[in-house]
Amino acid sequence: MAIAIETQFSFRLPRTSDVLLQFEAAAIPEQTILSANTELSDSEHCARVAAQDDIGERIWLRAGGEFNVSYNAEVALDRQIADLGSLKRLMPHEMPGEAVQYLFDSRYCPADRFQTFVDDTFGETDGGARIAAIRDWIADNYRYTPGASGPQTGALDTFIERRGICRDYAHTLVALARASTIPARYVACYAPGVDPPDFHAVAEVFLNDPETEGGGTWQLVDATGMADPAQTVKIGVGRDAADVSFLTSFGANQFLSSSVRVGLLGE
Amino acid sequence: MAIAIETQFSFRLPRTSDVLLQFEAAAIPEQTILSANTELSDSEHCARVAAQDDIGERIWLRAGGEFNVSYNAEVALDRQIADLGSLKRLMPHEMPGEAVQYLFDSRYCPADRFQTFVDDTFGETDGGARIAAIRDWIADNYRYTPGASGPQTGALDTFIERRGICRDYAHTLVALARASTIPARYVACYAPGVDPPDFHAVAEVFLNDPETEGGGTWQLVDATGMADPAQTVKIGVGRDAADVSFLTSFGANQFLSSSVRVGLLGE
Amino acid sequence: MAIAIETQFSFRLPRTSDVLLQFEAAAIPEQTILSANTELSDSEHCARVAAQDDIGERIWLRAGGEFNVSYNAEVALDRQIADLGSLKRLMPHEMPGEAVQYLFDSRYCPADRFQTFVDDTFGETDGGARIAAIRDWIADNYRYTPGASGPQTGALDTFIERRGICRDYAHTLVALARASTIPARYVACYAPGVDPPDFHAVAEVFLNDPETEGGGTWQLVDATGMADPAQTVKIGVGRDAADVSFLTSFGANQFLSSSVRVGLLGE
Amino acid sequence: MAIAIETQFSFRLPRTSDVLLQFEAAAIPEQTILSANTELSDSEHCARVAAQDDIGERIWLRAGGEFNVSYNAEVALDRQIADLGSLKRLMPHEMPGEAVQYLFDSRYCPADRFQTFVDDTFGETDGGARIAAIRDWIADNYRYTPGASGPQTGALDTFIERRGICRDYAHTLVALARASTIPARYVACYAPGVDPPDFHAVAEVFLNDPETEGGGTWQLVDATGMADPAQTVKIGVGRDAADVSFLTSFGANQFLSSSVRVGLLGE
Repeated sequence: MAIAIETQFSFRLPRTSDVLLQFEAAAIPEQTILSANTELSDSEHCARVAAQDDIGERIWLRAGGEFNVSYNAEVALDRQIADLGSLKRLMPHEMPGEAVQYLFDSRYCPADRFQTFVDDTFGETDGGARIAAIRDWIADNYRYTPGASGPQTGALDTFIERRGICRDYAHTLVALARASTIPARYVACYAPGVDPPDFHAVAEVFLNDPETEGGGTWQLVDATGMADPAQTVKIGVGRDAADVSFLTSFGANQFLSSSVRVGLLGE
Repeated sequence: MAIAIETQFSFRLPRTSDVLLQFEAAAIPEQTILSANTELSDSEHCARVAAQDDIGERIWLRAGGEFNVSYNAEVALDRQIADLGSLKRLMPHEMPGEAVQYLFDSRYCPADRFQTFVDDTFGETDGGARIAAIRDWIADNYRYTPGASGPQTGALDTFIERRGICRDYAHTLVALARASTIPARYVACYAPGVDPPDFHAVAEVFLNDPETEGGGTWQLVDATGMADPAQTVKIGVGRDAADVSFLTSFGANQFLSSSVRVGLLGE
Repeated sequence: MAIAIETQFSFRLPRTSDVLLQFEAAAIPEQTILSANTELSDSEHCARVAAQDDIGERIWLRAGGEFNVSYNAEVALDRQIADLGSLKRLMPHEMPGEAVQYLFDSRYCPADRFQTFVDDTFGETDGGARIAAIRDWIADNYRYTPGASGPQTGALDTFIERRGICRDYAHTLVALARASTIPARYVACYAPGVDPPDFHAVAEVFLNDPETEGGGTWQLVDATGMADPAQTVKIGVGRDAADVSFLTSFGANQFLSSSVRVGLLGE
Repeated sequence: MAIAIETQFSFRLPRTSDVLLQFEAAAIPEQTILSANTELSDSEHCARVAAQDDIGERIWLRAGGEFNVSYNAEVALDRQIADLGSLKRLMPHEMPGEAVQYLFDSRYCPADRFQTFVDDTFGETDGGARIAAIRDWIADNYRYTPGASGPQTGALDTFIERRGICRDYAHTLVALARASTIPARYVACYAPGVDPPDFHAVAEVFLNDPETEGGGTWQLVDATGMADPAQTVKIGVGRDAADVSFLTSFGANQFLSSSVRVGLLGE
């Protein structure tokens, strides 16, 4: 299985300022970068740092004026996909220290406030079955509505307004998983089948696969139903969208345009 | 310089559930644990994991009913205290990858919304002088008011209501530092002089000390003015209070009581 | 049907300041005040003004120090109780101008954000049947939990946290009714059967009773199920709790204690 | 002094639904409608009701598909403009009952949370001088920034973000006035000089003019500085923008376009 990605986006910085980009397919065991080409406008400074959990890289820029990003890549995927229903919850004391941070409230996923709702609505399920029930609840109760949410929208807002885009679906799943004491993180990704084509986002939950050894594995879950985990190319992960935006601007910034094309290689 | 700490707290779990504790002085280069004694009520499970940034440990418990924690320690401190005004801002591309997460919005510190305020109010300062100006602004504009805030209170709330406790002062400083593109984290700590005596919280900012080599150091800042950085014993750090509470409960929990005594050893 | 009410409450004003009280049974056609006795501590000024929609009176006080209120009354009730299911929705253009304000968002009832939820969940009902469905949904999904909410809690919070007290139940019903284009207001009241005994709050919705002439009537609805509309003594009404608190303080105020006893006369 | 107004706006209702419009100059003693012409697309129902405080009219429509509104008017103004600094605060017990509602928290103006800020920042002023100080503080600390706020933005948001448009400036002034125990309401209006030309909004505060008899008068205040009170044509008033939008939709609605031209007659 291999995926072809073509992305362009551009923005304008009215004053010279710092910008953080994260848009490239991450080089991780389950993803082999067959080829990749990144083109950036000129900048005063440009530096790469490892991104969160060492998945992918962030690019620091210091630049002014119009800035263009162009990225093409081919990525071979070999991801272990478990049957969600067969996965077991880890007891908290069995979790590795690095998973624990993904139980905590974050900017867009204030999980603790969903405690009663989660207990009452999903109380009879556990582990992977709980996550599947949460995913299905979101799919049944939300309407995919481009334009109805924005960069300040969090899981509380979406839970009330019942509509949004992939980012909002992922935030809700992350929040409800954490309220179930299941570590959950936000994954920025590319995936074929996203409609309209765009950067995509899904959730990832930390569960125990009885088939494999060791303390747990991260499993992709897409409450929008648009992305097949086997065909999803990870860009990066974080506690929520605040950590892993394709463009984080430290100063005024005017977004101009973007285009994203993702397909199965050979199609 | 050595500090003596005596802490007790207790809570009741109506059902058997998971609880995360973090209340012990962290064993880190700048803090030597001379002696320590932790006593916990019986539990089904009890496990220790490294806490965030490897500063201190978290204790996972699974227990039910009344639970008591008692902790005594003596800690020698040898912390390098820089003159805040002499510290320089790091350019983002000079920051190590692990500092970058402390620029992002978190649950209680949604920094990006303060951008205009920070530019207009502190625009003429930079680096350590900027942090000192923020600290002084908070001290001048907030009233220390126990009881006026709660566990859901974040920096946005406190900025509006202009009152709160150490947690709220630290959240505001963290948010305004991040809005200045200065990495900032939240520090749970013990310190003599806190009035009324209690667990304390301060902020820590990542700045460049021209006196030392390398890319930057974390410096403690207390906007309440109650804690002397040279006498502050760190328990742990996080993006904000969501990461480093002394008691995080995954399930219903009734807090019963706490007492904290902190003094200079020998006094 | 007659109701006996005994109320005391007291508070402390650290500085001389203005306070608004509204705690007396309203003299309105459906409620006859058989007897009433109000005792107030001394004040610099004391004035009565008609309360919202001319239902009950507000008392303005200017006072300092400890202030005590004592109120006893006997009230005969003769309220027309319609069968909720038989009531019809009024078309907006049939509504009197004074009902229209109760369609708008208010402090604790930002109704417009519930539009999608209401359409999806209650879309097959209308008029009184819609209100009954909303009331039952709240009763099924909320847990009555004294102490879990506070004076800043609004319908958005309660919808997320799924727990609260009478105030929170009423706010949710008001918000969901307005999102259904049914005017709804908040009613402060006394009622026997409230447990624990306290000031009570319910909602009131404006619907068309085919049995009576004219454009619509207000009907009491209690999502907590504790108060019988036939035995509910109205104190006042408003858009939400912000309008009709028993105690609104313009300046610092320390609440000391309250006691409320309400019973059927003769019992 | 006479003002000429030309307005068009249009929107699309995907399904037949109810819409409330309020866009015409109010016929009130201080405003004489010299001529007016309103043209509306066809609708199933159309009804006029008196608007809040009997200032202007609301138009209820039931319609589907594209809907166009066109309005032209000439309005003579004869408004008593007091010198703000000379106006005195009314004691609460001197306020008429109908002004009291404008002290309470509303959807976009949760005034009580600003109590400490108001006391600390404006504590040395009172009455009209207080309002002038609040107006100047807003003008000094906010940046007029079209596009930075939206229909969900309230005074809390704007106080944090320090930027917005007329609606946001008015909400802040209303909130800070109420936190000063001065009744304040939101005024939708037309005014020459608004840039870019659009529907405008200002605040109105209830103060005592020693020059006139009686309990108080409403005075227009524009924190944006764009509208001259003597040249401002009131459309309607409310507790905040939730009450007096030119277009309130009860159901899905897609805004298409608007144009507003306001000038001094003869210019």
